[in-house]
Parts: sequence; C-alpha cells; structure tokens
Amino acid sequence: MHSPKYFQERIGEELAGLSFPSTPSELYEPIRYMMSLGGKRIRPALVLMSNELFGSDPEKIIKVALGLEVFHNFTLMHDDIMDRAPLRRNKSTVHTKWNPNIAILSGDTMFVMSCQLVMNTDPKYSQEVLSLFFKTATQVCEGQQLDMNFESRGEVSINEYIEMISLKTAVLLGCSLKIGAILAGAKSDDTELMYSFGKNLGIAFQLHDDILDLYGEAEKFGKQVGGDILSNKKTILLLLALSHENKQEVDKLKVLINNSVLEPEKKIVAVHEIFERLEIRKKAEQEMEKYFKLALHSFQKVKVEDSRKEILSNLAERLMVRES
Amino acid sequence: MHSPKYFQERIGEELAGLSFPSTPSELYEPIRYMMSLGGKRIRPALVLMSNELFGSDPEKIIKVALGLEVFHNFTLMHDDIMDRAPLRRNKSTVHTKWNPNIAILSGDTMFVMSCQLVMNTDPKYSQEVLSLFFKTATQVCEGQQLDMNFESRGEVSINEYIEMISLKTAVLLGCSLKIGAILAGAKSDDTELMYSFGKNLGIAFQLHDDILDLYGEAEKFGKQVGGDILSNKKTILLLLALSHENKQEVDKLKVLINNSVLEPEKKIVAVHEIFERLEIRKKAEQEMEKYFKLALHSFQKVKVEDSRKEILSNLAERLMVRES
Repeated sequence: MHSPKYFQERIGEELAGLSFPSTPSELYEPIRYMMSLGGKRIRPALVLMSNELFGSDPEKIIKVALGLEVFHNFTLMHDDIMDRAPLRRNKSTVHTKWNPNIAILSGDTMFVMSCQLVMNTDPKYSQEVLSLFFKTATQVCEGQQLDMNFESRGEVSINEYIEMISLKTAVLLGCSLKIGAILAGAKSDDTELMYSFGKNLGIAFQLHDDILDLYGEAEKFGKQVGGDILSNKKTILLLLALSHENKQEVDKLKVLINNSVLEPEKKIVAVHEIFERLEIRKKAEQEMEKYFKLALHSFQKVKVEDSRKEILSNLAERLMVRES
Repeated sequence: MHSPKYFQERIGEELAGLSFPSTPSELYEPIRYMMSLGGKRIRPALVLMSNELFGSDPEKIIKVALGLEVFHNFTLMHDDIMDRAPLRRNKSTVHTKWNPNIAILSGDTMFVMSCQLVMNTDPKYSQEVLSLFFKTATQVCEGQQLDMNFESRGEVSINEYIEMISLKTAVLLGCSLKIGAILAGAKSDDTELMYSFGKNLGIAFQLHDDILDLYGEAEKFGKQVGGDILSNKKTILLLLALSHENKQEVDKLKVLINNSVLEPEKKIVAVHEIFERLEIRKKAEQEMEKYFKLALHSFQKVKVEDSRKEILSNLAERLMVRES
C-alpha cells in the first residue's frame, strides 16, 4: 500500500510528462500553465488509493486518475471566468493572464482531454466508468449554476446549501473513489459505499473550508481571514447564523450584511462577535462532523480488511484537521 | 433508403422529445432554446445516411446522431460568446439573451450531454467512435483558436486558411460520416473514405459560404451581402485577392481595408470591383471545385453499389449549389 504523498508525486510526474501539441500555442500554453499551478492532486490520489485498496495495481490506471485531475482543473478555469477571480493559488488566473476567450476555449479543450484520459480503461469497464464520469460532470455544472444563483438570492436554506456543495464539490470525490474501485473489479455494493464515502467526505471537506475561512490561521490558510464575510458569501457559517432563532441577532447580522460603508476590519469583527454569541462555529463543526461520520460509516462497511483501509482513513482524518 | 429531409425530420422529432431536468432552469433553459433555433441538422443526417448506406438500420443509432448535433450547437454557443455575436439564426444568442456566464456553463453542460449521447453505441464500436469524436472535438477547438488568431494577424496564406476551416468546420462532417459507417460495421478502408468525403465536402461547403456572402442573393441568404467585406473578415475571397500578383490592385485593396471612415456601401462596391478585376470569384470557385471533386472522388471509391450512393451524392451536390 502506498501513501497519499507517493501518489501525489506519481501524479506530478505524469503531469510533467504530459505532452501537448505545440500549436496553436494560445490553446495549449494556458493548459500547461493551469496544470503547473500545483494543488493537492486529491482526486487522482483517491482514484489510485481506492484502486489499490481493492488489490489492483494502480499504475495501470494512472491515465484515468490524471483525467480526473484535468477535469477538475477545467472546471476551475471556467469557474474563475464566471467568478471574475483574479488569482488562483496566488498566481494570475488564465482569463486575467490571457483573456476570457482563451480561458473558455482552453477549458473546452481540457475537458476533451480529460475524456480522452478517462477512456483509458479495460473495455469491460469503460461504459460504467464513462457513464459515471459524465453524470458527475453534469452535476458539477449544476452545482456551479446553483452557486451562482445563490449569490443573488435572498434566502438559502441549509439543505439547499448542502445540495449545492454536494454537486459542485463532493460528487467528484465520490466519483474518483468509485472509479478506482470499479477498475479494481470491486463488487457493486462496495463501489457504491466508496461513492458514499467520497461524497460525504467531500461535503465535510467543503464545510471545513467555510469554517477555516474565519477560524483558520491566516499564515497557514494563505488568504485573508474573514474574506467570505467581506464578500457576504453564503457559507455554512452565515447560513446557520441567518437561520438562528435569535431574531435580534439575526436582524443585527442583516444590517451588517447590507452595510457597504463599514470598514472591512470592523465588519469582520462585528460579524465574528454575532457568530460567537450564536455559537455558530460549534454548530458548523457539528454539521461537518455529521457528514464526516456518514463518510466513515460507509467506508467501514466496505468489505476489505481493516489493515488495508488505514491509509485512506488517515487521509480522510487529515483532510478534516488541516489548517489550510 | 431515406431522403435527407426524412432524416432531418426524424432528428427534429428526437430533439423535440429530449427531456431536460427542470432545475437549475438557468442551465437547461438556454440549452432548450439553443436546440430550438433550428438549422439544417446536416451532421446528424450525415451520420444516419452513412449508416444506411452500408445497409444498417439508422434508427438504432439515432441517439449518436443527436449527439453530433448537440456537440455542434455547443460549439456555436461558445463561439458566439467569443465572437460577441448578437444574433444566431435571427434570434438573440444565448450570451445576449441571458449572459456570458450562463452561455459558458450551459455550453459545458451541452458538451457533456453530447458525450452521453455519442456513448450510446454497441460496446464493440464505442472505443473507436469515442476516440474519433474526442479527436474531432479537439480539432474543432484548435480551428476556433486559429480563426481567432487570424483576425489579428497580418498575413494568412491560403493553405493556412484551408487548414483552419478544415479543423473548425470540415472534420466534424468527416467524423459524422465515418461514425455512421463504423456503426454499420463498414470496413476500415471504407470508413476512411467516408471521412475523406466528409472532410473535403466540408472544406468546399465553407468556401461556398465565403463566396455566397458576396455573391449570394440577399433575400435567400438571409443576411447582408458583403458583410464579410465590412468586417474585413479573412475569407477565401479576400485572401485570394491579397495574394494576387497584381501589386497595384493589392495595394488599393489594402488601403480600402484600412479605411475606417468610408461608407459601408461604398466600401463593398470598391472591394467588389477589385475582386472583379482580379477574377476572384472564379478563382474561389475553382478552389471550391477542387475540394468538391476530392470529396466525390473519395466517395466513388467506397465499395457500395452506385444506386445506394445516389441520395448522398445528390445531397452533396445540393450543398454546393444552395444559394443560402
């Protein structure tokens, strides 16, 4: 059994070895750039670890794993245009470094590339793997659309929010683990459990991300603490606060949200104080714990000896205690 | 054997019967809208006609044919954003009716949808069909990138132009005919010939489009005659004129191109006159004829009895004499 670090490095090597056509350079240079920005390579690592869990040799499906990483980066490239994000991993986003047209078309090309990579399977599994991959791709698009809708909507329920992050982020983790399992010839009960493991882990992971934005350590998180508060982003923290029964505090919070002249620092402090009084951090962590437990519960039921599961369990734990 | 009209109507029925999820409506409403704008449905018709040519029952692969049409419309939706086109088939483009973000994401979703449709094949052909489809999709992206590059480039050779329209437009026609043939179990010699037939027909078709912009009848063509001249679009007409050995006329043409204050009507007339003196229409038609003959030559070599080929030959002829 190999460590996540081993797989992340293998993926890094494979990515470095990917060759792109030289022309048109305007199409392929942004793809090379995007893939070089780094990242934790979690999705391909999950594909490979799940595959090894069921006793298969993950080297044989490294191209498929790579496909999941290229797909993820395609969605980031297009999301960055839609969100007008200037930076990605502290570097210029493709649409700022080049222009939106280049980012649209390079993104499209990356999606095709991801399909070509995911196709590299034993033909007996290709139908099942591609069906799952395309279904997941559609869900990721739906999640991004819901995320954009929520920005301009007045009220968003906790359930709606969970559904959104489930589509936008979590199903791709489920898909990664399930594809690794399918390609190891795992039984359908087990591939479903791996999917549920990944999906619930993904929800917990995203909730943790929301919590870290305010409660993470600035140096480690690598971005301004409270950035979500300044942009009035509907995170689990804000939504839990807005749905709190304490009307008085909720009203104060709404006034703060609509106050566009308050100094940034003061706004963060004031919202933070309301969150403290309403115990929002604890509630958010409970919500996160709920999905994390659901994830582990599914994983425990997978019919593989416990000793083989340790590495993936540890990775899941680590994703939840990370400070960045 | 069925007529193109029969297949176009069957495709229309299938498109009308496609069901989309109801939410998020911001994602699916633009797809429904785009697919309802009409069009000649040439690509799916080619898939089905090629399939029937080799003795197969095209009803069995109607979903695959539909996939090619959805893919084509995805490329139009994204191209329209990049080209800032306000209209498509005399209706608002998706990015103007909604907004560019919606057009990016609905387009992405359409692309996934097209993959799901193209996957609907006998498993024994799926690897070959999907490989061809993805390769073609990449080429279409490359063609669009080259097209954008050419806009801001000083000189473009005739060969470069043919390469660009080949990628952007023609390979998808080749791909359509080849997929229909593969799915009928045709031999690889014949599937290659069908590809070459479609690709060369596509090049001839695009050259014809360039010629029609200036020499088509306005009422029938449905858009302003000479629009390409006004936008200085590098069409086969302009490129043939610019590469003419008559330096004096070429210089006059360059002055006209760079004249941004001349009245539109006068610019069209002046450029038209230079084209007349340089016999550009004739040269462009010769170029078009060359590719049309290459197309027919490939088709003639396909090992199917001539009587079965008549309908496709007639369709190819009709595409070349159309006035709109």
